[in-house]
Amino acid sequence: MKVYKAHIVFTKERQRFEVLENGYVAVDNGRVCAVAADLQSLGCPDAEVTDFGNRLLIPAMNDVHVHAAQYHNQGIAMDLELLPWLDNYTFPEESKFSDVDYAERIYRRFIHHLWRVGTMRATVFATIHTAGTRRLMELFGEAGMGALVGKVAMDRNSPATLSEPVGKAIEGMQQLAEAFADPDGLVRPIVTPRFIPTCTPDMLRACGEIARRYHLPVQSHLSENLSEVALVRELEPESRGYGDAYNRYGLFGQTPTVMAHCVWSDASERALMRQNGVMVAHCPTSNLNVSSGMAPVRTFLDEGIAVGLGSDISGGHDLSIFRMMVYAIQVSKMHYQRSDHAMAFLSLAEAFWMATKVGGSFFGKVGSFEQGYDFDALVIDDHDLYPDDYSILQRLERFIYLGDDRQIVHRFCRGREVVLPDQWRA
Amino acid sequence: MKVYKAHIVFTKERQRFEVLENGYVAVDNGRVCAVAADLQSLGCPDAEVTDFGNRLLIPAMNDVHVHAAQYHNQGIAMDLELLPWLDNYTFPEESKFSDVDYAERIYRRFIHHLWRVGTMRATVFATIHTAGTRRLMELFGEAGMGALVGKVAMDRNSPATLSEPVGKAIEGMQQLAEAFADPDGLVRPIVTPRFIPTCTPDMLRACGEIARRYHLPVQSHLSENLSEVALVRELEPESRGYGDAYNRYGLFGQTPTVMAHCVWSDASERALMRQNGVMVAHCPTSNLNVSSGMAPVRTFLDEGIAVGLGSDISGGHDLSIFRMMVYAIQVSKMHYQRSDHAMAFLSLAEAFWMATKVGGSFFGKVGSFEQGYDFDALVIDDHDLYPDDYSILQRLERFIYLGDDRQIVHRFCRGREVVLPDQWRA
Repeated sequence: MKVYKAHIVFTKERQRFEVLENGYVAVDNGRVCAVAADLQSLGCPDAEVTDFGNRLLIPAMNDVHVHAAQYHNQGIAMDLELLPWLDNYTFPEESKFSDVDYAERIYRRFIHHLWRVGTMRATVFATIHTAGTRRLMELFGEAGMGALVGKVAMDRNSPATLSEPVGKAIEGMQQLAEAFADPDGLVRPIVTPRFIPTCTPDMLRACGEIARRYHLPVQSHLSENLSEVALVRELEPESRGYGDAYNRYGLFGQTPTVMAHCVWSDASERALMRQNGVMVAHCPTSNLNVSSGMAPVRTFLDEGIAVGLGSDISGGHDLSIFRMMVYAIQVSKMHYQRSDHAMAFLSLAEAFWMATKVGGSFFGKVGSFEQGYDFDALVIDDHDLYPDDYSILQRLERFIYLGDDRQIVHRFCRGREVVLPDQWRA
Repeated sequence: MKVYKAHIVFTKERQRFEVLENGYVAVDNGRVCAVAADLQSLGCPDAEVTDFGNRLLIPAMNDVHVHAAQYHNQGIAMDLELLPWLDNYTFPEESKFSDVDYAERIYRRFIHHLWRVGTMRATVFATIHTAGTRRLMELFGEAGMGALVGKVAMDRNSPATLSEPVGKAIEGMQQLAEAFADPDGLVRPIVTPRFIPTCTPDMLRACGEIARRYHLPVQSHLSENLSEVALVRELEPESRGYGDAYNRYGLFGQTPTVMAHCVWSDASERALMRQNGVMVAHCPTSNLNVSSGMAPVRTFLDEGIAVGLGSDISGGHDLSIFRMMVYAIQVSKMHYQRSDHAMAFLSLAEAFWMATKVGGSFFGKVGSFEQGYDFDALVIDDHDLYPDDYSILQRLERFIYLGDDRQIVHRFCRGREVVLPDQWRA
């Protein structure tokens, strides 16, 4: 049993912050057992208290869509259109991950950067390479951080270096499923067809089967841009739409599913997402950088669809989920402006809730300080942001808008403090 | 004469970076006298060379629209609509600047933050208070940074604490104009009617007269949002539009003029801006945060209107002009997407050129390393961004997209290195 004292802020529900000024949280066996405004109410009179003083204690960040193998391309080639970007940067880079040593070097940097910005759980695309993907999973395990890691399935419309026959792809996925079989493990595989344009019906069907057989979650891309949506209609004429195509292959909520972008999901696709419990990975920076458009997040929320936040490196350029909150709010304000204020913009509490409790729900009971939740947490030392001049919530808002990794002074994942040495960046 | 060696990058023209790998720049009396790829071509054989090694040397940033007196509100109250934001946060905060001690404390923090993020020149709104505004100007002088500082004129639709009769306003402006009379000084006054809704015709007329009399530049807000544009039409029925209203009072290019936002400037307003040489201060973060809309920057550039970048704290939340480049590109990509790719998005070179050479032109010969330009420069040490893996331009792109003040290791304004101790942040 451990007890931490700090200014505790989290979101149980969508529109409201819970704030415990000088509050306490009790953690046992990695999980929150109680949170209270004072030590008496906490009900753990004999526990040793770690006092974080005038710092903030908040749930750690969850990134529900990111390409680990594109980390080396973060922040370059942003002037390119999608196709030359893929052909000249993304695919050549991903191809290098056939070399496990190269993969390890980049993946260590990537995990260290996630750690720096306070992301303790991530839903990750690796590449088609089984050995490299396995190395990434081992590295997350070594770091003590949570991840759902996808060996990527691709067998059409892809360069030869990034295509794999169905049998070999499935064999690799099985190996990973068996190597990381503990359903309560911090690191788990996730079935990852890249998206419908790069996967034959056979591949998609096999992905659906392996997800069902091992009860593995699923991730992919959905309705990111209009030409992609049109292409999928051509490729899947028997489906009623893009989401329905995944659905027909057992890849749309038959097991827990997160779909990145959903910028152009229409009403019938959204109805299927709600019905099947498919989560949206909203990636606002990527959507802006790649000129995809603005995802209708308010509509998703109003319709009861779960929305987490994703950095989508390297379409996105920023790995910080705090920065994603700001962008999510800004994009929602454009909808607000363009709808003549009919579509309310996201509040800070909503954005925070998406980044913590909603995104976290894809990993289990993660993203809140309610009883039974994994204690994934960050300690924020905002002494250089003039904390004495502001309320606790204003301090949090200023950290989210102005802060960076310098203010994150402790990081916990499932109760254990995670410390990564600088050598991971080498 | 001083010579600096580094990887030199700047933009002479809109679409192209000048790159001098291991290049040299010679500086005499604060101005660039030559830039060359090698020491022989530089033509200063006897000069002592300061070698910045594997670092980048770029022009410093210029912020052409920022409210120094809103610095304390940076990153708070972002969930509010414009009116409650003004009434409950902005106006009460600005009212505090009647206290010169308070003003000095916040202004020092503000200048230190500008310095940290590499902004060596800024076009600044202070408040109506002459003494506080003068203190801000003195502090910029003490720091050795360049600024055009505006005592703000307001005499209607404003709280009593932020209204001033025309006579008193003009008297204050005259005092400042006479105290900072050197036309080549780094710190100069700028005539600053807040915007038409808060200034009576008498005030606007008096502002135009004082600008002409002392040949002072002018700054204000223009066509930021649609309800403001409609209000100005009501208030100024004899004008053909918002810009024309300023023009009729001698505040629209009669002396060098920068107008913030211009989100909704129509064709006739833009024609007047081009004709009168009025610069746009494009403030993309502010426009998103305050739900104003997306300024048509590509249209401005195509029509020959100069566009610089502004942080617009505290409508904007980020003081970094590097971050403004990223946002400007992203907003332009939304125009690109919505125009079915008819409206080309901004390239990195264009955004850089706006932040340096265009914004800098409002301060004189500033923002380039061409001969005769003030040597305003930053040295970027990107060793923690894996410089060896990237080209010089990719390193610059990565610094702009991913970097922050940690990579800025030297800052020069008109040839002098500017160093501000941490006490400025107290």
